[in-house]
Amino acid sequence: MAEKPSRGLADVVAASTALSDIDGKAGRLSYRGYDINQLAGAATFEEIAYLLQRGAPPGRGELAGYRAELAAGRALGPLVTASVPAVSRAQHPMEALRSLVSLASADDPDSGSNESEPNQRKAARLTAQQPVLVAAYEAVRTGKPVPEPDPGLGVAANLLLQLTGYHPEPRAAEIFDTCLVLHADHTMNASTFAARVCAATLSDMHSAVVAALATLKGPLHGGANEQVMRGLEAIRRSAGGDPLEAVSAQVTDRLRRGEKIMGFGHRVYKGEDPRATVLRKLSAELAATVGDDTFYQMSRRMEEVVAAEKGLYPNVDFYAATVYHYLGIPTDLFTPVFSVSRMAGWTAHIIEQHADNRLIRPDSEYIGESRLTWVPLDTRETRETRETR
Amino acid sequence: MAEKPSRGLADVVAASTALSDIDGKAGRLSYRGYDINQLAGAATFEEIAYLLQRGAPPGRGELAGYRAELAAGRALGPLVTASVPAVSRAQHPMEALRSLVSLASADDPDSGSNESEPNQRKAARLTAQQPVLVAAYEAVRTGKPVPEPDPGLGVAANLLLQLTGYHPEPRAAEIFDTCLVLHADHTMNASTFAARVCAATLSDMHSAVVAALATLKGPLHGGANEQVMRGLEAIRRSAGGDPLEAVSAQVTDRLRRGEKIMGFGHRVYKGEDPRATVLRKLSAELAATVGDDTFYQMSRRMEEVVAAEKGLYPNVDFYAATVYHYLGIPTDLFTPVFSVSRMAGWTAHIIEQHADNRLIRPDSEYIGESRLTWVPLDTRETRETRETR
Repeated sequence: MAEKPSRGLADVVAASTALSDIDGKAGRLSYRGYDINQLAGAATFEEIAYLLQRGAPPGRGELAGYRAELAAGRALGPLVTASVPAVSRAQHPMEALRSLVSLASADDPDSGSNESEPNQRKAARLTAQQPVLVAAYEAVRTGKPVPEPDPGLGVAANLLLQLTGYHPEPRAAEIFDTCLVLHADHTMNASTFAARVCAATLSDMHSAVVAALATLKGPLHGGANEQVMRGLEAIRRSAGGDPLEAVSAQVTDRLRRGEKIMGFGHRVYKGEDPRATVLRKLSAELAATVGDDTFYQMSRRMEEVVAAEKGLYPNVDFYAATVYHYLGIPTDLFTPVFSVSRMAGWTAHIIEQHADNRLIRPDSEYIGESRLTWVPLDTRETRETRETR
Repeated sequence: MAEKPSRGLADVVAASTALSDIDGKAGRLSYRGYDINQLAGAATFEEIAYLLQRGAPPGRGELAGYRAELAAGRALGPLVTASVPAVSRAQHPMEALRSLVSLASADDPDSGSNESEPNQRKAARLTAQQPVLVAAYEAVRTGKPVPEPDPGLGVAANLLLQLTGYHPEPRAAEIFDTCLVLHADHTMNASTFAARVCAATLSDMHSAVVAALATLKGPLHGGANEQVMRGLEAIRRSAGGDPLEAVSAQVTDRLRRGEKIMGFGHRVYKGEDPRATVLRKLSAELAATVGDDTFYQMSRRMEEVVAAEKGLYPNVDFYAATVYHYLGIPTDLFTPVFSVSRMAGWTAHIIEQHADNRLIRPDSEYIGESRLTWVPLDTRETRETRETR
């Protein structure tokens, strides 16, 4: 019957996908056969979302049509619109997104169908709405109005516009667009896997995305980029003199105490995460632009210390932290911003799961007691009755 | 590296658990070592929720304390209370529960901790609130007020009271209590597995329960009991004369066309699901009590036809349908009512996952194209450009 347990399903194949592929040894990630090193800086997030959700790179007309779908899809429905203020005031960012996307199914005209075309329309709407929800959340807590999206701008530039209140520098928007491209999909990561487990019961796309958001919220998954930044900020604050020396001292100390440093190591990549390679360069460029490279230099130093002490490489979260920081994104919105990008991958995986479905229902290994006899409450001997006797 | 794919992870061990165990060949299910055949009719849902969430059967004082926790935990917080009317009007029952539980994290004083004691308190509150949310939903759409819970009654009797508006007959409450006991846990079913995948990122209990609710919504999982009842109702409506003859004719016809009949077969049980055995008896008893055994007799006939044609046995959803129906539960609340019970298991699995955690991150098998070259949009050859040339 059941095979020996594999803790955490490491190296167990849970599903087939044509969406993304990782070569952990070579440090390669590709989307539908295109290496992300080719895509970073060359493709826009919209092209990648289209590629993932609809199967091939769009032509000019197809891309224009998809952009128009995104523009129309940005409008929030009545239940979500009415709920944004109270939810944003009461919940942390990822909780709020989980709630708002759950509410959004009420407003989606394609709710209730798992067929390919309605699923593609829902995927576009969810992709369009996620940045709007993040910006709406930020607006409630800062009390500032959200600027209207600029129809001439893409997803990346519009999100920066709506989050910061001003039109981003073109190069900043390009860099952010590259971040969205790099984060769009990553095979069977935990949130994508949760989405597929959910979709495999033939539950709908909104449900599966809610399961993914709930899962991305976990600090071992989406929360890591935020923790990287908080770690850098804490070290900088505590550093009396040289923040680089403080990095060396504190990180060495923590590693020797057996603590984990967030943003390093990956179950799949044996060497450096190829996304980290791109993000390191972007972080350096932004640091030079903003004229304060302290966090970048601290990151470089941290990388050296962790490599020397543990032989671990930075993963995608490590340099994403300083890139997002230099772009002016509030630290507690790092994971929500990640979800804006990963929405492309989640929805594509849900479409793929629905198109060739089988329930995902693993086995478990039972490690408890067996063949016990249930004693009625009146005569039950418990710790409590023994102690009071 | 990765092993050969197992479609749907059948027979792959995804986690260890001391909560429940299934012997598929012998048709046995046990909770923490107690066979459910011992528990059905002998243990209350509160004792089983305590057993699952806290590790051992409660003593008198412990059970009284737990009941008091449940009674206090029933009170909905401000965000959920304010949201119930609009959510209940705009969303289907399982969507609404997914949204309301997501909102409820804002109101929980233990949000933000995954430690054992806060997790146990949250588990009790979620267990207490789920029936209240189901009843509140029903009250909004029927326009009737929800009766206050009766502190002298248990979870089962209170839910019947709040759903139907009157105090249930003691035997009806007992039967419903047995249903809740039978549905409380079932190893690595899809919703429980989704909850564990979510919790394994160290996401919080509310997130993991939201992932479970999103997954239970799927018709291949929680939706089955509702579909069983709708199938029976449709056949009865369409039957000109004898509904039993209509069952024989229609079910035979559908099976021969290769259609699936909901409520039969199970990936884990090779013979009859032991819960179905208990529920069949309860359905017969309730049919006799209400004085119309048509749906029960139709179910018996359907069982005979499916056994003869396909050799499949009824699963837990099959007789749960008529039991819930005879108890006066609206058909589209069958899955929500199931979630009231399964909340005990979900929360116990989340506690167990957090107590000995490892990220659940499987592999995938890549089945798409490889080593493609990304062509910029300007020079990209697509179906579209070829067609318009």
